[in-house]
Amino acid sequence: MLRRGGRLEVKVLTRNEGKLREFIELGSEYGIEVVEVGLPKKEIQAETLEEVALHSAANASPLVKGLFFAEDAGLFIDALKGFPGVYSAYVLKTIGVSGILKLMEGVQMRDAFFKSVIALRVPREGIKIFRGEVKGRISFEARGSGGFGFDPIFIPEGEIRTFAEMSVREKNMFSHRAAAFRAMADWLRTTFKP
Amino acid sequence: MLRRGGRLEVKVLTRNEGKLREFIELGSEYGIEVVEVGLPKKEIQAETLEEVALHSAANASPLVKGLFFAEDAGLFIDALKGFPGVYSAYVLKTIGVSGILKLMEGVQMRDAFFKSVIALRVPREGIKIFRGEVKGRISFEARGSGGFGFDPIFIPEGEIRTFAEMSVREKNMFSHRAAAFRAMADWLRTTFKP
Repeated sequence: MLRRGGRLEVKVLTRNEGKLREFIELGSEYGIEVVEVGLPKKEIQAETLEEVALHSAANASPLVKGLFFAEDAGLFIDALKGFPGVYSAYVLKTIGVSGILKLMEGVQMRDAFFKSVIALRVPREGIKIFRGEVKGRISFEARGSGGFGFDPIFIPEGEIRTFAEMSVREKNMFSHRAAAFRAMADWLRTTFKP
Repeated sequence: MLRRGGRLEVKVLTRNEGKLREFIELGSEYGIEVVEVGLPKKEIQAETLEEVALHSAANASPLVKGLFFAEDAGLFIDALKGFPGVYSAYVLKTIGVSGILKLMEGVQMRDAFFKSVIALRVPREGIKIFRGEVKGRISFEARGSGGFGFDPIFIPEGEIRTFAEMSVREKNMFSHRAAAFRAMADWLRTTFKP
């Protein structure tokens, strides 16, 4: 049921083109076919990424067949006490990248991290959680046209480029979302091995 | 059942001392005794103040007897596309008043409004919603030591003082929370008249 032509199919609940591109690219590394489910997503903003992802997956459970996952992510800036955190999507829509840069004006301590949480719904088993994080810093200006969200101002540890200056494949070598996906993919390979 | 010694008793779900003070003062104008219920509040951050208040009231319904209400409020700044809005409590805890002032540096268009939503649970009837709003503007610096939250940077229309420069009674002549409370009090007076 879960395989088609030898490949494992996993649906993803997202309407974010950027996320979808990253997941499809990652899936291809693991022989996993990632398929978009265009479910209207009612985002409940809870206190943790885990709650948001779990809530999305649980809500979709009666409506979507087979393996599927929901993902939620956030940017946590140390100097801003974790802001924008769980509310990253809302903050992006309102004050945006330029708002974050303004809040960080004159701030030397620019440590931050991105975190991603995947809630995977496994038929007859329930929901499994996978997490990924990437440490880095907030740049002094927005750079690059790739990626999405706060990618133009986030430089992962060990790099000088922002996420938005990288290709999807390059970003996937560092990113929180890729780390969460790889944790899920490893579990899927072990559980549903051919 | 709902009256004690001729006064109507209404419980309020809040752990915010500032809100409690305002409600008690308002209640005294209407012969309504406002009593705090120290229920541990699990705040779900939904997309609207209405959802938050409804959620709080609905969650407490099995636990609290009699008339009670939950209230949620937010500050909506035009130039920031409504930020911090429904997420005002979280934004206060992270970037705070100084973060908002920083975001507003150099911004001339300083229009904003506060909105308050009360969800009143009426035994055997359900939950009723009351709303209040106050228009105003964001000050150029924080002023005053009264009030709480974003009060030091909000100047209501027709005033030159911030909410934090007013007494509780003065703030109640303008505030969104007072407007929502008065709407509720009017309804209560009509419904439970002596």
